[in-house]
Amino acid sequence: MRREITGFSNPLLKEIRGLREKKLRKRAGLFLAEGLRIMTEARDAGFLPEMLFRVKDRDVHALEIALETAVLAAGGDVIETSPDILAKLSGKENAQIIMGVYKDHPTALEDIDREQAPIWLVAHAMRDPGNLGTMLRTGDAVGAGGLILIDDCTDPFSVESVRASMGAIFTQKVVQCRWDNFLPWLRAGKGQLVGTSLQTSVDYQAAAYTAPCFILTGNEAQGLPDDYESQCDLRVKMPMCGKADSLNAAVATAVMAYEVLNQFRRPS
Amino acid sequence: MRREITGFSNPLLKEIRGLREKKLRKRAGLFLAEGLRIMTEARDAGFLPEMLFRVKDRDVHALEIALETAVLAAGGDVIETSPDILAKLSGKENAQIIMGVYKDHPTALEDIDREQAPIWLVAHAMRDPGNLGTMLRTGDAVGAGGLILIDDCTDPFSVESVRASMGAIFTQKVVQCRWDNFLPWLRAGKGQLVGTSLQTSVDYQAAAYTAPCFILTGNEAQGLPDDYESQCDLRVKMPMCGKADSLNAAVATAVMAYEVLNQFRRPS
Repeated sequence: MRREITGFSNPLLKEIRGLREKKLRKRAGLFLAEGLRIMTEARDAGFLPEMLFRVKDRDVHALEIALETAVLAAGGDVIETSPDILAKLSGKENAQIIMGVYKDHPTALEDIDREQAPIWLVAHAMRDPGNLGTMLRTGDAVGAGGLILIDDCTDPFSVESVRASMGAIFTQKVVQCRWDNFLPWLRAGKGQLVGTSLQTSVDYQAAAYTAPCFILTGNEAQGLPDDYESQCDLRVKMPMCGKADSLNAAVATAVMAYEVLNQFRRPS
Repeated sequence: MRREITGFSNPLLKEIRGLREKKLRKRAGLFLAEGLRIMTEARDAGFLPEMLFRVKDRDVHALEIALETAVLAAGGDVIETSPDILAKLSGKENAQIIMGVYKDHPTALEDIDREQAPIWLVAHAMRDPGNLGTMLRTGDAVGAGGLILIDDCTDPFSVESVRASMGAIFTQKVVQCRWDNFLPWLRAGKGQLVGTSLQTSVDYQAAAYTAPCFILTGNEAQGLPDDYESQCDLRVKMPMCGKADSLNAAVATAVMAYEVLNQFRRPS
């Protein structure tokens, strides 16, 4: 249905703004994604928003018309409103002129088909939503199947994570599980678990990766717990030429993932 | 001098809090760095804070005693205060128990010795302080000489950038200049300028890099301007297997920088 919201006091706005709190967001099972480009990618991947918010009275891109038509046809709402209200919803000053409220779509570990992709990213206790979203974006780029979040991670469907994922939240599978569930699942099938470590002398370029390769990244502050690291089939290290002994978690994941991809795409 | 601050109304605190605003920070020529580890790395790199703030009345690490002794010997201040006040200064809830106020140390382009390092990172119009700090951290890891910031970038000495750099703000040279100054400087000596591009078919692993290699990264939203890209000696592309056509700026820089490093460290 197409309708209009003009006042800040509309109760729906409060509900949508609540999606920025993890607890309320999870309870609602909804999340926010912004911008025509990402919302079009979402549609291409099979996701339409329950509600589409748009700034009214302006020139409209053909892609937006197509998107709105699809939302209405699927029984969703198109809600016209003011730039101020959209900014309020997004929590950003220069908000996009269009945003969507989507059903979240976590995947159960058991529903993963590991043979579907040569690379899977696995992250333990990620705290930073920007890092998490960036990992999703990198996963898309290297052709990973998805991101498996181990133990207590920041919410992958938070506004910041979705924003950093640049649409990959719709193309990468997102699993949330405990280590105690992940490890038996992993060992019940094919799969090489690779972790970066300070306690190894194996250079990350000297190791031989095999698909499906599960790249395990530790928490930003502590790295991998020792007993998680000890379960890895391969422990490798990246060269660290300076004073620091580690990279940003999303950066380390990307450097590893591109090495694995490079090995896989090399003619053998 | 060692002294104590107990009240929130102390005018020095207002001054230090002002360092979180770019204009005030630049005018003061000071910046904030947090944590014993980073401050010890700073000292190793030759930087002592003008002022060291510490939570008083607690067990003290030997490294902290060494640091405080050095600060006092150099004529700096050690200021004891409460956890609440330190949290207020840092703007973070779980603040570090020690932080330092340092003189900023931008480097002039002319003072760069390009032969000093095989890799230099160059970034255009970076907007995100987290990305900028992460680039510094990556630069340290790959043995880069420093980060050259082109045109209008976010402040490298902001709290967020310094935090993301994890100490690399003290080990990497930081230059801020205009493109119109950078290009003539670059061309006046040895140096290969490498940019990532969507408009090339050269795989980033197929190109041959030579030192000193200047890796140029474009702004988060727009990428590199065409006329900047056209000045590159090499335009390369990374494989993008998914829906997206780009990586996060700090990730792209790291993937490129590790490829260059890997080529340089390979026995020829």
